[in-house]
Amino acid sequence: MDPTPSISAPSLFSLAGQNVLITGATRGTNYSFIPIWLCCIGAACALALAEAGASVCLVQRNTPEGSQPNHESLNTIRATGVKAEVVYCDLDNTEAVKGLFQKALDVMNGQIHVLVNCAGIQRRSPSVDFPESDWDDVLNVNLKSVWLLCQAAGRHMVPLRRGKIINFCSLLTFQGGLTVPAYASAKGALGQLTKALSNEWSQHNVQPPHLPWVTPSSPFSRSVPELARVYLSPSSSLARTHACTLALLPSHVHSRVPANQLPPSSSSSSSSSPFPRNERLLADPVRLRQISERIPAGRWGDPKDFAGPVVFLASSASQYVCGELLLVDGGWMGR
Amino acid sequence: MDPTPSISAPSLFSLAGQNVLITGATRGTNYSFIPIWLCCIGAACALALAEAGASVCLVQRNTPEGSQPNHESLNTIRATGVKAEVVYCDLDNTEAVKGLFQKALDVMNGQIHVLVNCAGIQRRSPSVDFPESDWDDVLNVNLKSVWLLCQAAGRHMVPLRRGKIINFCSLLTFQGGLTVPAYASAKGALGQLTKALSNEWSQHNVQPPHLPWVTPSSPFSRSVPELARVYLSPSSSLARTHACTLALLPSHVHSRVPANQLPPSSSSSSSSSPFPRNERLLADPVRLRQISERIPAGRWGDPKDFAGPVVFLASSASQYVCGELLLVDGGWMGR
Amino acid sequence: MDPTPSISAPSLFSLAGQNVLITGATRGTNYSFIPIWLCCIGAACALALAEAGASVCLVQRNTPEGSQPNHESLNTIRATGVKAEVVYCDLDNTEAVKGLFQKALDVMNGQIHVLVNCAGIQRRSPSVDFPESDWDDVLNVNLKSVWLLCQAAGRHMVPLRRGKIINFCSLLTFQGGLTVPAYASAKGALGQLTKALSNEWSQHNVQPPHLPWVTPSSPFSRSVPELARVYLSPSSSLARTHACTLALLPSHVHSRVPANQLPPSSSSSSSSSPFPRNERLLADPVRLRQISERIPAGRWGDPKDFAGPVVFLASSASQYVCGELLLVDGGWMGR
Amino acid sequence: MDPTPSISAPSLFSLAGQNVLITGATRGTNYSFIPIWLCCIGAACALALAEAGASVCLVQRNTPEGSQPNHESLNTIRATGVKAEVVYCDLDNTEAVKGLFQKALDVMNGQIHVLVNCAGIQRRSPSVDFPESDWDDVLNVNLKSVWLLCQAAGRHMVPLRRGKIINFCSLLTFQGGLTVPAYASAKGALGQLTKALSNEWSQHNVQPPHLPWVTPSSPFSRSVPELARVYLSPSSSLARTHACTLALLPSHVHSRVPANQLPPSSSSSSSSSPFPRNERLLADPVRLRQISERIPAGRWGDPKDFAGPVVFLASSASQYVCGELLLVDGGWMGR
Repeated sequence: MDPTPSISAPSLFSLAGQNVLITGATRGTNYSFIPIWLCCIGAACALALAEAGASVCLVQRNTPEGSQPNHESLNTIRATGVKAEVVYCDLDNTEAVKGLFQKALDVMNGQIHVLVNCAGIQRRSPSVDFPESDWDDVLNVNLKSVWLLCQAAGRHMVPLRRGKIINFCSLLTFQGGLTVPAYASAKGALGQLTKALSNEWSQHNVQPPHLPWVTPSSPFSRSVPELARVYLSPSSSLARTHACTLALLPSHVHSRVPANQLPPSSSSSSSSSPFPRNERLLADPVRLRQISERIPAGRWGDPKDFAGPVVFLASSASQYVCGELLLVDGGWMGR
Repeated sequence: MDPTPSISAPSLFSLAGQNVLITGATRGTNYSFIPIWLCCIGAACALALAEAGASVCLVQRNTPEGSQPNHESLNTIRATGVKAEVVYCDLDNTEAVKGLFQKALDVMNGQIHVLVNCAGIQRRSPSVDFPESDWDDVLNVNLKSVWLLCQAAGRHMVPLRRGKIINFCSLLTFQGGLTVPAYASAKGALGQLTKALSNEWSQHNVQPPHLPWVTPSSPFSRSVPELARVYLSPSSSLARTHACTLALLPSHVHSRVPANQLPPSSSSSSSSSPFPRNERLLADPVRLRQISERIPAGRWGDPKDFAGPVVFLASSASQYVCGELLLVDGGWMGR
Repeated sequence: MDPTPSISAPSLFSLAGQNVLITGATRGTNYSFIPIWLCCIGAACALALAEAGASVCLVQRNTPEGSQPNHESLNTIRATGVKAEVVYCDLDNTEAVKGLFQKALDVMNGQIHVLVNCAGIQRRSPSVDFPESDWDDVLNVNLKSVWLLCQAAGRHMVPLRRGKIINFCSLLTFQGGLTVPAYASAKGALGQLTKALSNEWSQHNVQPPHLPWVTPSSPFSRSVPELARVYLSPSSSLARTHACTLALLPSHVHSRVPANQLPPSSSSSSSSSPFPRNERLLADPVRLRQISERIPAGRWGDPKDFAGPVVFLASSASQYVCGELLLVDGGWMGR
Repeated sequence: MDPTPSISAPSLFSLAGQNVLITGATRGTNYSFIPIWLCCIGAACALALAEAGASVCLVQRNTPEGSQPNHESLNTIRATGVKAEVVYCDLDNTEAVKGLFQKALDVMNGQIHVLVNCAGIQRRSPSVDFPESDWDDVLNVNLKSVWLLCQAAGRHMVPLRRGKIINFCSLLTFQGGLTVPAYASAKGALGQLTKALSNEWSQHNVQPPHLPWVTPSSPFSRSVPELARVYLSPSSSLARTHACTLALLPSHVHSRVPANQLPPSSSSSSSSSPFPRNERLLADPVRLRQISERIPAGRWGDPKDFAGPVVFLASSASQYVCGELLLVDGGWMGR
C-alpha cells in the first residue's frame, strides 16, 4: 500500500479523474423492489462523489416495456458537469450481475476506480413465518450480488494496484433487528465480507494519481509543488493495484420522498410492504418517538449525511482505513 | 422469560429430561464433506450434553450404498446410559433439511428442547478466483440449512414456551480471515441471525421443566425440594414458549485425529482439500508458530474445551444470556 | 494452560476445594456507598459459588463505631455448610486495598483460587457539571481498587500456576450511558484491563486440582475414575500457575430489596442519590417501559441470573474462555 | 443537531473559520514524557487541520529554565499562512490542566470550535510488577487530563451549540496488549468516555458556518449559491451549541524520527524507556516481522495517514458521525 500522498489536506478528498460505479442510486421507479430511503442514500452519495470530481456510472433496473426509466439522478449528476453514464441490470438476477461490471467498464473507458454497493432490499415477517422465497431474495440481492460485484471489481483492480470498494452495511450488521432475519443475516455477512476482502486486497492498494487540474488560483492550490513531485516521481507511471474495502452503516434515515412520488402500496400495512422500515415507522408515533429519543444526535439521519463519509472513504484521505465499518448513525450504537 | 430457577448452583447445569438435536457430531466417514476438527467439536459437545443428562439425537450423513455409517459418537453416548438416536440427512440438501426437524421429533417422543448447530464446511480460494459453486455450497450448509433448522425449531419451541438454540459461529464472525470469503460471510451472517432470533423469541423463553425423575440417590439430588416446588407451582402446568439463541465461537482447535483415520486426500494441498484449516496449518511450522504465539492461553483449543460452554448455554444456568456470542478462544480476540 | 479436565460435564462446574475472595457481596448497611442492586448481585454470586462447593471470603466495609456489620450474606453462606469468612476493608481507600488480599489469604489458609470483583459505585451528574470529587471516587473504587486487587491476586496465583479472576463490568463497557461519564470510563477501562491481564497470565493457567474428597455417594460421583486418573498423573504434583480473567456484564437488574430495607435517602431525586440507577428508573414509568420493551428477554434481570454464569466462569468448565466479556443481559446488546 | 449542510462535497471538508486546540502536537523536546511517535501524529494532524483552513492552538510542555521550547510544529503551521498560537501546560499536572482551556480561549479570540486530544504517555512493565506510580501517571495524562479538557470544552461549546471533540484512542481500546495494563485501561476508558459525551452533547451540535472566502473562480465554487443560502438563513445567526465526540485509533505507526533527534535513553532497554513501543519493536526483527505480516495494508502506518481522518472528523463532512471510534489501522482489527 502506498503512503498517504504528501498533498495538502483538502486535496486528499478530491476524486478528480476517478470513475465510480454505484448501485442503488437511480431512484428507480420500481419502488416495490428497492426501498426509497436506500435509493435516496445512493443518489445523495452519487451526487457527492460527482461534486468531488468523480465520473459516475449508475446501475439502473430494467424498466417494463412501454415505461421510461427514471433518470432523475443521472440528470442531476450530469448537471454538475461531470461525466455520468448508466448501465442496466436487475440486481436480483445473479446471472445478469455477473456481466454488470464489464458493462460498466465498457461505458467508463475501461477504468473503474471505486465501486459503491448501495442497493439493497428488505423483507419483513416474524421469523417463524418468514417465507423461504423472501429469504432467498434478500440473500441474493443484499449478499450474493454484492459479492459478485466485489469479485469482479477485485479482478479488475488488483492487477492495476488501485481502487476502493465501499459496501453499505446496516446497524443490523451489529444488532439483530425484529422480524428481518434475512436482512440481519445478509448485512452481518456483508460486514465480514468487507473485512475478508480487505485482508486479501489492501496490501495491493495504491492510491490513484491526483488532481492534475489544480491551479495556483484555487483555494487548495497551496500544495501544487508537492503534487508536481507526486506526478514526476517514477513510481507514478507504474501499474498499480488495489483496494480498501470499506463499509458505511446507515442508521435510521428519514425518507423525504414527496407524498406524490410514493407508490400506492406504500400506505399498505401488510407484511409484504415494499417500505418496511420508514413508512411504517413514520406512521407509528410511539415507535417513532422511541427511536428518536434514542438517537444521541437528536434527529433522524438524512441521505445527505452520507455525502462526507462516502467521499472520505472513496478518496486518498482514508488511505490507511481498511476493512473498517464506519458508523454514520448519529451516535445510535454508543447509546 | 421465567426467572432463573431457585435451585442450587450445580443443579442449574443439569440437562436431565432434555432432548437435544445436534448436527455435526457423528464424525461421519464422509470426510470430504465435514472437516474433521468441527466433527470433533460436535462429538465432544454431544458427549458433554449426554453426561449432563440430556437425551441426544445425532444427524448423520447418508452413507453411500454398501458402506456403513460411522456410529462412533452414537455408541459412545449410549455407553453413558442416556438415550441416543440418529436421523439421516445431508445438510447441503436444503430440501432434505426442511424435513429434518420433524424426523428428529419422531424419534425423540415429539419433544426437542435444545438445538445445537455444529456442522459446517469450509472452502478456500483467493477471493479473485473463488468459485461460485464453492460460495453456494458454503452459504447453503453454513447459513441456509442452519436458518431452516432454527426456524423449524422455533415453530416447535415458541408455542411450548421453552427451548434453546445454540449456533456454532467462528472467529470469522468477527475477523475477515484469508481466502475464505464465503465462510467469513456465512459466519458473520450466523452471528446476526443468532441475535435476530434472540430478539424475537427470548421473551417467550421459559426454562424447560426439570428433572421429574431426580431421586435422592441421583447426582443432582440436592435440589429435589426446590424442584418439587417448581413443579407444583401453578405456572409450571402452563404451555410454555421459547428460546435463547446462543453462539459458541470455536477458536483454533487442534484436530487430534490419528493419522490412520485421515482419508487419503488429507495430504493434498489442492484448494478443494476437505481439511482446509488444520491439516495445512499444522503442516506449516512458521504459520503454526505465529498462531500459537498469539493465543494468550498458550495452547491450541481442544474439542473438549467446548464441553463446559455448551452445557452452560444449553442449561438453566444461562437463563438470562440471550443472543450472546460466547467466545471460547483462549483469549485470541483480546490479544 | 492445562487442557480442560477429562471429567464428565457436571463435574466441570464443581468448585469444591476452591477458595473464593469476593467484593461487593455483603449487602453492607452503608447504602450510600454501594448501590443495593450491585450488592444483591454480589450476594447472589457468593451464594452460588458456595453452593458449587467453594469456600468464600467476603469483603465487608468497616462499620461506624457502635453499629453492627451486616452479616446477612455471611450467615446465609455458612448455612449451606461451606466455610465462609469475612475481612474488613473500605474499597475507596486504596491504601487499605493494598493490604486486602493478604488479609484474605490469612483467613483462607494461604490459598485463594478465585477473585471476584463485584463491588462498584455510581455517581450521576450531567458531564458539564460532573464534580471532580465524584470522578475521583468512581475511578478509585471501580478501577484502581480493582486493579490493585487483580495485581495482588496475580502475584499470588501466577507462581502457583492456577487461579481465576472475574471482574464485573457493565453494559457501559460498550455503551456510553447518560450523565455517568466516570462510570462509563471506569467500566470501559475494566473491560480492557481484563483483556490485558488475560493476555499476560492465561498462558500460565492450570486448573486447580479437583475434588479429592468426591465419594461415590456425592453429587458428582459419576466421574470418580476419571478424577483418579487426573490425580495420579505426574503433572498434578507440579506447582501450577495462573489465570483466566473474565468479565460478567450486568444488564438492567431489578433490585427487589423490600421497601423497609431502603435507606431514607432512596426516595431522594437529587443527583447525588446513592441509587442512581434502579430507584429512579423504577420511579419513572415511561423510562421503565422504554427499557423493559427493549429487553429481548421481556423482563429485567435478577441477581440470581448471575449464579450460573459466575459458577461457569469460576470453574474448569470455562477453561479455554479467557479475557472474555460475557454478556448476561437478556439480549439487550443485540437488540 | 443541524442537518449536514447543503453544500457541495468538497466544501464539506473545509475548516476555514474554525479554531482548533490540539494537544501532543509540538514534538516537544522533553522526549522522556511524550513518545515521539504520538508527537508525530499530533504534528501531522495539526498541519492537516491548518491546511484545511483552521487556526490552530498548540499545547506546549513547559521547558526547563535555560532551554528553548521546540517550535517546529508552530513554525511549520504558520508557514502555511494560517494563525497558529501556543499555550504552555504540563498535561501530567491536572491542576494546570484545569486552566488550560481558558488560556487557549484567551489566545484564540474567545472561540474554540474543535478540541483534539492527541497527547498520551506509555509505561511498560509486566502486570505483576507494574509500579503504582506508573499506573497513576498513565491514568492522569491519558484519561483524567483528557476528561478535564473535554469537560472544559463542553462548558464552552454546549451553550454555543457547536463544536467537535476528537480523542485519540488506540487499538488497546479493543485489545489488551502486553505489559501495558494502565495504557489499555486508560484507552478503554477513553473510548467509553467518548461515547458518554456523544450521548449527552451530540443533540446540541450545530455545524459551524462555512467558507466565506469561496469564490466563483475556485474549483469548488459550484456550490456558492447554496452557501449563500446557508449564510442568509435566519438560523445561521443564532447562537449554536455543541458537539460530536469522536475517536481516532492509531495503529502501529512508524516513527521516522531521524536518529540524531533521538535522546540518548532511546537505546535503553529498561522498562522505563520513554519509547516503549516503536524503538523496541523496531529493534526486534522477529516481532517486527510478525506485526508487519498481520497488517492487511502491508505497511506500517505513517503519521500522515491521520491527516484525512482528522479533517473528516473535524469538519461538517462527519456531521452525523457521533461517538464513533474510527479505526485508522491498515485493517489490523479485521484480520
